[in-house]
Amino acid sequence: MANAIQSSTSATRGLEGVVVTTTQLSKVDGTAGRLYYRGYSIDHLAKNASFEEVAYLLWAGHLPNASEISKVREDLVACRTAPSGLVDALRKVPLNAPPMTALRSIISLLGHYDPDAEDNGPEASMRKAYRLTSQMATLVAAFDQIRKGKDPIPPRQDLNHAANFLYMLTGEEPSDIASRALETYLILLADHGFNASTFAARVTASTLSDMHSAIVSAIGTLKGPLHGAANQRALEQFLEIGDVENVKPWFEKAKAEKRRIMGVGHRVYKVVDPRARYLRQMALQLSGTTGNPQVLDIALKLEEVVSEDPYFVERKLYPNVDYYSAPALYMLGIDADLFPTLFAMSRVVGWTAHVMEQWANNRLIRPRAQFIGDLDLPWVPLEERP
Amino acid sequence: MANAIQSSTSATRGLEGVVVTTTQLSKVDGTAGRLYYRGYSIDHLAKNASFEEVAYLLWAGHLPNASEISKVREDLVACRTAPSGLVDALRKVPLNAPPMTALRSIISLLGHYDPDAEDNGPEASMRKAYRLTSQMATLVAAFDQIRKGKDPIPPRQDLNHAANFLYMLTGEEPSDIASRALETYLILLADHGFNASTFAARVTASTLSDMHSAIVSAIGTLKGPLHGAANQRALEQFLEIGDVENVKPWFEKAKAEKRRIMGVGHRVYKVVDPRARYLRQMALQLSGTTGNPQVLDIALKLEEVVSEDPYFVERKLYPNVDYYSAPALYMLGIDADLFPTLFAMSRVVGWTAHVMEQWANNRLIRPRAQFIGDLDLPWVPLEERP
Repeated sequence: MANAIQSSTSATRGLEGVVVTTTQLSKVDGTAGRLYYRGYSIDHLAKNASFEEVAYLLWAGHLPNASEISKVREDLVACRTAPSGLVDALRKVPLNAPPMTALRSIISLLGHYDPDAEDNGPEASMRKAYRLTSQMATLVAAFDQIRKGKDPIPPRQDLNHAANFLYMLTGEEPSDIASRALETYLILLADHGFNASTFAARVTASTLSDMHSAIVSAIGTLKGPLHGAANQRALEQFLEIGDVENVKPWFEKAKAEKRRIMGVGHRVYKVVDPRARYLRQMALQLSGTTGNPQVLDIALKLEEVVSEDPYFVERKLYPNVDYYSAPALYMLGIDADLFPTLFAMSRVVGWTAHVMEQWANNRLIRPRAQFIGDLDLPWVPLEERP
Repeated sequence: MANAIQSSTSATRGLEGVVVTTTQLSKVDGTAGRLYYRGYSIDHLAKNASFEEVAYLLWAGHLPNASEISKVREDLVACRTAPSGLVDALRKVPLNAPPMTALRSIISLLGHYDPDAEDNGPEASMRKAYRLTSQMATLVAAFDQIRKGKDPIPPRQDLNHAANFLYMLTGEEPSDIASRALETYLILLADHGFNASTFAARVTASTLSDMHSAIVSAIGTLKGPLHGAANQRALEQFLEIGDVENVKPWFEKAKAEKRRIMGVGHRVYKVVDPRARYLRQMALQLSGTTGNPQVLDIALKLEEVVSEDPYFVERKLYPNVDYYSAPALYMLGIDADLFPTLFAMSRVVGWTAHVMEQWANNRLIRPRAQFIGDLDLPWVPLEERP
């Protein structure tokens, strides 16, 4: 049976390489190691753009001019406050679940409060994209405060999206370096073709279900260790190694045990992930400002060891976006188990843009499975069953 | 651009006909109009099996013997009671949202209480399949009571799954005909290949996320009118027609306006949907026992009109599973907006079975999109943008 499974569908298992539809949102060039949002290389965006500009670019299709960008900023700020009833409901449920489980419930509940929840038209969808992006940041910070027995810190109106999030998380206004580091992270992960969570959002949207349902599907999908939890796993791996001295023996042991090295390799990129380059730079910059660069030192050393190992070199397995996200987010003072929610706070921009693109030219996403079991079994009455 | 979209990917848009992987759970033979669960034709199952037997068959792979079936029944009954904290939390949020929105939130929150939530092993997964199936029925009934300003009716231990649900919904023990009608409905919709909600569950599971996340994705996907809300839309259509006399003129007007006839046609079946035959029978049986057969009379008349119309005949568009679900569920006294949650209460058996099948031989489901936008646009500073 196992052979039948492998031989009959090896071409499409996991839909690897299968084209579902067209998109104008992002292009991932895995061979050249390039990534574009709406035609702009992320090289430009990581160096020059604000998170608010990138969100507008992905949603509206062009870079905002001066009047557009000030409206985007105002609109995003205006919907930062989360429904108070939702925060009350949150206090009623056990919050020792993984943060991504909490985020899944929170965003699902948020749909109960959205006046546009059942309107899939382009204008209502755009309003929901703004609200989901702003409120997800507020609610991740509120969740973290509540689970620590504290009161949520209300959002500030005068800070940009990234700085306001760090403020709500810590109660302190972040440094420019910290704020720009988080902003760069949020820009770099905002969209990435038909990754599993984005694809899940589009499958959900394709039945003409609502935006919140699609984003909830995406959150649940991102939660997995083969997707959005990889950044957390990468940090746990560096913490497990514990010291730069241990990198080499840890790596040899992991190889012998055939353990997966977290944060290395990618289904699409066969060269260095272009996002990893910027996250590495960002981590190096942050290490000059915080007293805790050890995790980064371990990551740098492990990269060196991996890059000299024939197995990894032959298979073109390089540190991916999760690898350097881990020390960067760690040095920003964010708890490891929150890392996947930070990924969601960035990718929600892409998810909402993809839902709108799906609806602009919808077709139900409904594939087939190849049935390989028995057929036409005779009915056996209960008393005659062995 | 629209031409580019159609010509380049018409073969796979919506993944129509694309095989994702193999399955042993159900076979849909759209040409012969046959459906099998684990090798057994639904003809046998609709006539002979209990819902509990069918659930066990899909989960475990074989029909239960006498000792297995009594254990299944006990285990399902044992987990009927929902966490009281969850019911309290439910009272805190606005429940005027569509029932499928509420169900999405409820099942997401249920994950916070499940002791096995983060364990994807086969034994824990099986326990979660039982709990999700039992508790979804309890929570749909509790939601309906709470939104009507009443207290939830606690489950009975002495009734089977279908009868207990009708009891929790009305406070009265249902007739055998009503109970068997609902049971037949729950059997007929329990699995159906890689429909969109099942596929969404597998996409979510494929990142090694958890069972509740996968089921929440499935619920959000089922919510759409192109999938699980079609039964509700079919009823609304019959109610809009209002009288058997109006069927013919309503149909002519709908045709002229190119309106979709709800509950007619299916992507896979090119003959009569085998489930529709049983639901039609079931509706006819129920009509003898309730005082409200008018909706059924309208449905029967519309079927006759559609079956004589060349457009529908040529395209092989027949009443599908949603068409006769509508009068059947209506005659059981279930509110129209609850219909999609009834579909979920049945399909949760298939969803959980598919998640377990996905994990038994996992591969990340991550397709590609064809990028059709611009590339390498030059960066334009904010002040120079038009």
